[in-house]
Amino acid sequence: MTGSTRVAVLGASGYTGGELVRLLASHPALEVTFLGGQGSAGKTLGEVHPHLAGLPIAGQVLETAEVSGVAAVAAAAELVFSALPHGASAAIAPALLDAGLTVVDLAGDFRLPAAAYPEWYGFEHPAPQWLTEAVYGLPELFGVQLPGARLVANPGCYPTPVILGCAPLLDAGLLVPGPIRVDGKTGLSGAGRGATEASLFTSTEDSVRPYRVPRHQHTPEMEHGITLATGLAPAVLFVPHLVPTVRGVLTTTYASLAEGVTTEALTECLAAAYEGRPFVRVLAPGQMVDSKRTRATNLVELQAIADPRTGTAVIVGALDNLVKGAAGQAIQNANLLLGLPEETGLPTLAVYP
Amino acid sequence: MTGSTRVAVLGASGYTGGELVRLLASHPALEVTFLGGQGSAGKTLGEVHPHLAGLPIAGQVLETAEVSGVAAVAAAAELVFSALPHGASAAIAPALLDAGLTVVDLAGDFRLPAAAYPEWYGFEHPAPQWLTEAVYGLPELFGVQLPGARLVANPGCYPTPVILGCAPLLDAGLLVPGPIRVDGKTGLSGAGRGATEASLFTSTEDSVRPYRVPRHQHTPEMEHGITLATGLAPAVLFVPHLVPTVRGVLTTTYASLAEGVTTEALTECLAAAYEGRPFVRVLAPGQMVDSKRTRATNLVELQAIADPRTGTAVIVGALDNLVKGAAGQAIQNANLLLGLPEETGLPTLAVYP
Amino acid sequence: MTGSTRVAVLGASGYTGGELVRLLASHPALEVTFLGGQGSAGKTLGEVHPHLAGLPIAGQVLETAEVSGVAAVAAAAELVFSALPHGASAAIAPALLDAGLTVVDLAGDFRLPAAAYPEWYGFEHPAPQWLTEAVYGLPELFGVQLPGARLVANPGCYPTPVILGCAPLLDAGLLVPGPIRVDGKTGLSGAGRGATEASLFTSTEDSVRPYRVPRHQHTPEMEHGITLATGLAPAVLFVPHLVPTVRGVLTTTYASLAEGVTTEALTECLAAAYEGRPFVRVLAPGQMVDSKRTRATNLVELQAIADPRTGTAVIVGALDNLVKGAAGQAIQNANLLLGLPEETGLPTLAVYP
Amino acid sequence: MTGSTRVAVLGASGYTGGELVRLLASHPALEVTFLGGQGSAGKTLGEVHPHLAGLPIAGQVLETAEVSGVAAVAAAAELVFSALPHGASAAIAPALLDAGLTVVDLAGDFRLPAAAYPEWYGFEHPAPQWLTEAVYGLPELFGVQLPGARLVANPGCYPTPVILGCAPLLDAGLLVPGPIRVDGKTGLSGAGRGATEASLFTSTEDSVRPYRVPRHQHTPEMEHGITLATGLAPAVLFVPHLVPTVRGVLTTTYASLAEGVTTEALTECLAAAYEGRPFVRVLAPGQMVDSKRTRATNLVELQAIADPRTGTAVIVGALDNLVKGAAGQAIQNANLLLGLPEETGLPTLAVYP
Repeated sequence: MTGSTRVAVLGASGYTGGELVRLLASHPALEVTFLGGQGSAGKTLGEVHPHLAGLPIAGQVLETAEVSGVAAVAAAAELVFSALPHGASAAIAPALLDAGLTVVDLAGDFRLPAAAYPEWYGFEHPAPQWLTEAVYGLPELFGVQLPGARLVANPGCYPTPVILGCAPLLDAGLLVPGPIRVDGKTGLSGAGRGATEASLFTSTEDSVRPYRVPRHQHTPEMEHGITLATGLAPAVLFVPHLVPTVRGVLTTTYASLAEGVTTEALTECLAAAYEGRPFVRVLAPGQMVDSKRTRATNLVELQAIADPRTGTAVIVGALDNLVKGAAGQAIQNANLLLGLPEETGLPTLAVYP
Repeated sequence: MTGSTRVAVLGASGYTGGELVRLLASHPALEVTFLGGQGSAGKTLGEVHPHLAGLPIAGQVLETAEVSGVAAVAAAAELVFSALPHGASAAIAPALLDAGLTVVDLAGDFRLPAAAYPEWYGFEHPAPQWLTEAVYGLPELFGVQLPGARLVANPGCYPTPVILGCAPLLDAGLLVPGPIRVDGKTGLSGAGRGATEASLFTSTEDSVRPYRVPRHQHTPEMEHGITLATGLAPAVLFVPHLVPTVRGVLTTTYASLAEGVTTEALTECLAAAYEGRPFVRVLAPGQMVDSKRTRATNLVELQAIADPRTGTAVIVGALDNLVKGAAGQAIQNANLLLGLPEETGLPTLAVYP
Repeated sequence: MTGSTRVAVLGASGYTGGELVRLLASHPALEVTFLGGQGSAGKTLGEVHPHLAGLPIAGQVLETAEVSGVAAVAAAAELVFSALPHGASAAIAPALLDAGLTVVDLAGDFRLPAAAYPEWYGFEHPAPQWLTEAVYGLPELFGVQLPGARLVANPGCYPTPVILGCAPLLDAGLLVPGPIRVDGKTGLSGAGRGATEASLFTSTEDSVRPYRVPRHQHTPEMEHGITLATGLAPAVLFVPHLVPTVRGVLTTTYASLAEGVTTEALTECLAAAYEGRPFVRVLAPGQMVDSKRTRATNLVELQAIADPRTGTAVIVGALDNLVKGAAGQAIQNANLLLGLPEETGLPTLAVYP
Repeated sequence: MTGSTRVAVLGASGYTGGELVRLLASHPALEVTFLGGQGSAGKTLGEVHPHLAGLPIAGQVLETAEVSGVAAVAAAAELVFSALPHGASAAIAPALLDAGLTVVDLAGDFRLPAAAYPEWYGFEHPAPQWLTEAVYGLPELFGVQLPGARLVANPGCYPTPVILGCAPLLDAGLLVPGPIRVDGKTGLSGAGRGATEASLFTSTEDSVRPYRVPRHQHTPEMEHGITLATGLAPAVLFVPHLVPTVRGVLTTTYASLAEGVTTEALTECLAAAYEGRPFVRVLAPGQMVDSKRTRATNLVELQAIADPRTGTAVIVGALDNLVKGAAGQAIQNANLLLGLPEETGLPTLAVYP
């Protein structure tokens, strides 16, 4: 395919890696030429992801994606999507970058200031010099920094709707700066493909439960992203919950409402902020977000409600955590980085019902 | 059965009515002697609820439960559980009370001050004189008022864990009075047995969505219950969400934390408040509430977490909305009203997994 | 769009109609120019299917699709996909055909001989003259009849995997003619969008149950399709079951195995029959069909197992009932009818997990 | 508790072990005095099963249940429920029996003739002398052998409804002897508590798939049980499927119908066979079995349909695999063995919805 960019997918054996390969299969300008795995190295793509068995590259073997293998990646590809686990990305990315590759990192390894890593991720960052160079890849807010970027930190699934929902409202003064509380709900695909008792069907059917409260690593990312976008520094509390769905994240954000602000004003502000953007759907007052309407798409649904009784703005957002919350947004970032239209190869029609 | 109280179940054809009959079937001191239905009048219990087809009373016919039928109810029973829809209970309860019956009302019709009905329920209350006589039946807080009560307003499924979680903490000064935000998650049995597109399996699988925000009728009930218990009057915002479960409500409450208060202090306060109560399980710090562990029981699970970074107390509660959130709590109220041990006939071991 | 065929979708408000519009949105040679509804006439596509709100035609209004409206359909389109209910298609199709339109009917109205309709569908067929002209649109078996066809009877979701699985094996003499028993499992999207108690989330979660046994209308269609393909006339028993999934049909067929036939022989026969066909995936011995791997694709997965102990061939098939079982296969038929490659515009990569 | 039998539960950490403890907690004549685990030895019951944390014995520590520990079991208990994995039961049971204990084994270790173990379970049976002494514990058919039995082989979840459904019909000559094909559907609790990718929520949501075909170890058990009950020896083919439910097994059995036999005749035969039995519900013609109506009960629902078109009898059965398919039936066996009414301590009202 003349003119297409050769792409490596590292961490191809996980759900996010599989979703990257699935979406890239119909991308007109990106071609997967390298597949990296860790535990699955040596197996073919079709063995690791039977639902991809029909692809021309289904027979391609996953290779080890470690620092020693960087030369192979560099020989095969120009752009790297790294869906490696937290920590593993930070370990290999500098070598990839030094070898001249462009890196879109889907882990949390380049999203925060260096000082935050010991507290929230449990490791000292091994390559702090790259943190300042990384672009935080939320295209609707920071897309202007993407063309030509060398390293993109692809946002987390939860921070994406929260930052998109809060930033314009804070900027416009419709929210009063102060603590922001975020109540998250997620399905099981976010927990990954590794088998634990907590992720069994038996454990999760008919179950709702919070987890990792109040120390989820997306907390500082929400704070940092809001600061990047607005210059303000509200403290964020994040309380995630597991619900029996597979795809889909829904966040309900509680912030202090400025005096006299109405639901209509909040809605208009969000609608204006994202006018013309192909992946943000701001709902009219009275409509309610539904995570299912974003399934298998790169969409975010947003709505905002003013509750003057309690001085609260409620901002609800939803997305498919494997697409707009991971693989789709990574491709959107790559599109902009390469000068392509941002919607290239990305779905917007939900598989419903 | 000598010594048992004869009981009528009105609204027996719904999920709550069916759950009342199921639980009462193994109650040693309450005997169902009258079944009232509306659309289902004329059918037998076994036809209306095939899962109850094995009961001795499965062949009993549901009778119309309207004001004209009060004499029949009064002839058959001493105590009435009314699982009629909102509004229908208020219409019939005065006649039942005048006929000398004791009434435990599972609708919202006797939970609020008269002034709140037009705004939150959409009707002018037809019997305001009974509102002051009604006991708000949250036994762990107001049980002392139950012995001998004539009319019990059985609490809503959402308000139960919220009020149980907040009241002791407010009382102890561990929370700063101020707006309280409640994020609720519920399964589909709360939506009842009536068929709507929104309640279909196809609509709700893999879907999370808020509903009726910010006007859910449980909002003033949470405010009122907290005031009854503490004398304080914080404003409450309530944002309920539908998730793909059948039974189970989980509420996550965000309140302002008093200076210096720790997770341990919050936990100890709740544990002390409910020590010895058979249906409240306060989790130790680090454990997380799971709605599934309350399934088919009359239990509430509670946990509290302090987040000094944002000055927030997070209080999580869960219960089975058909048991502790409706039929089970109604029986608990009846037990206390009649002078029986409150746990009589009520399950505490979850059907898990 | 020069060169594209203008297409009408009748019954656009149901799940199948919505799926047709969703799939056609990315079809390079078919353009939706008319939307017909019945109860939903007068609403826009975006109102009826909020997940399609991002489409350019989301604002288009659904029009009444009755015989009186045939002129409007004929003015707008050349090809009609009719996703109307059984009976309604038979009522309108003759007028559409007379007006020069080509019709792909997704109901059961043109799949059987006239004599079968009173018994299995409960009506006397109003246009028996068209039954002989209709092509039974199972492209992998009858594709040669499609180019230039005027009327295509798009197969039912259950018969598709059953006929595809049995026909080559019967033809090759690997099965002994005799009664064939088909055990079907389906999700709720097959029950459609209409709200009934049986389709509620509460009724179907944690439930498995047979339905319409032994009188399901797909029974004679399986018999007829097998006869069309093989000239043989085995009697078929069909026992469908409802399971708590949304998309996906899985059929397990029990037939008499010819002496000495092995699993390998069955597998090779199926593999040879569908070699090169883009939408049939025959699994190697030892692999097991999974309906989830066909989700949102036009694929059928097939496997066959010989059990000499009981003289049985077990043939398992799965597909997405809204795609290969309805809308996708209809588009595949239209592609062949119009001389396009059969895979045009049709997905083969499952949305997994 | 005077007069109660002291009971040991081995394998208490699994789902079946937990269900035994849950059900025994309300049994008036059996008292759990010993809890055996393997990987979980050293933990308390409440740690291993948090949903049982409210029990008086929640603090009891699980002890190793190996041959070396038999003396401890014998000191603590008179009756043993062994929910150990296949193979582990056969290893320890002889020592328990030699120590004078009565054993109800929930594994497959004493259900078959010795010759069947190498082929179907993969091991040479270590204690064939006990196989002839074991009673196959299907109380509705073999209850007469239970009083005073030393060793009970508790049936598998799938064979229970199949044997109960087929035996009376074969006995009465309503079925023609010949191959019987059984199509099974099960939820995930049958797969146990161990974490595998195949049992994740992500893998099983919206998925239907066969497994272990045609070598499932319940195949010879169905054959053996039918032979024990009827003296006939039909060959059985068993094709199990996994569906996204937690509890519940539904079996659809296809057998050859004798000439002229009607649905009514099949139904009457089953109804007569189980008249007065508290746990078998035979449905009237036209009603359909629903596994959900058996949830958390010791019930079996049965229905039978004649299809003269194909000469087939379809027999459908459903039960809760953890109750009537395991723990509940084990208690029913113990009740009869000890001379108690068989329904003692066993639930018959489903937790519905």
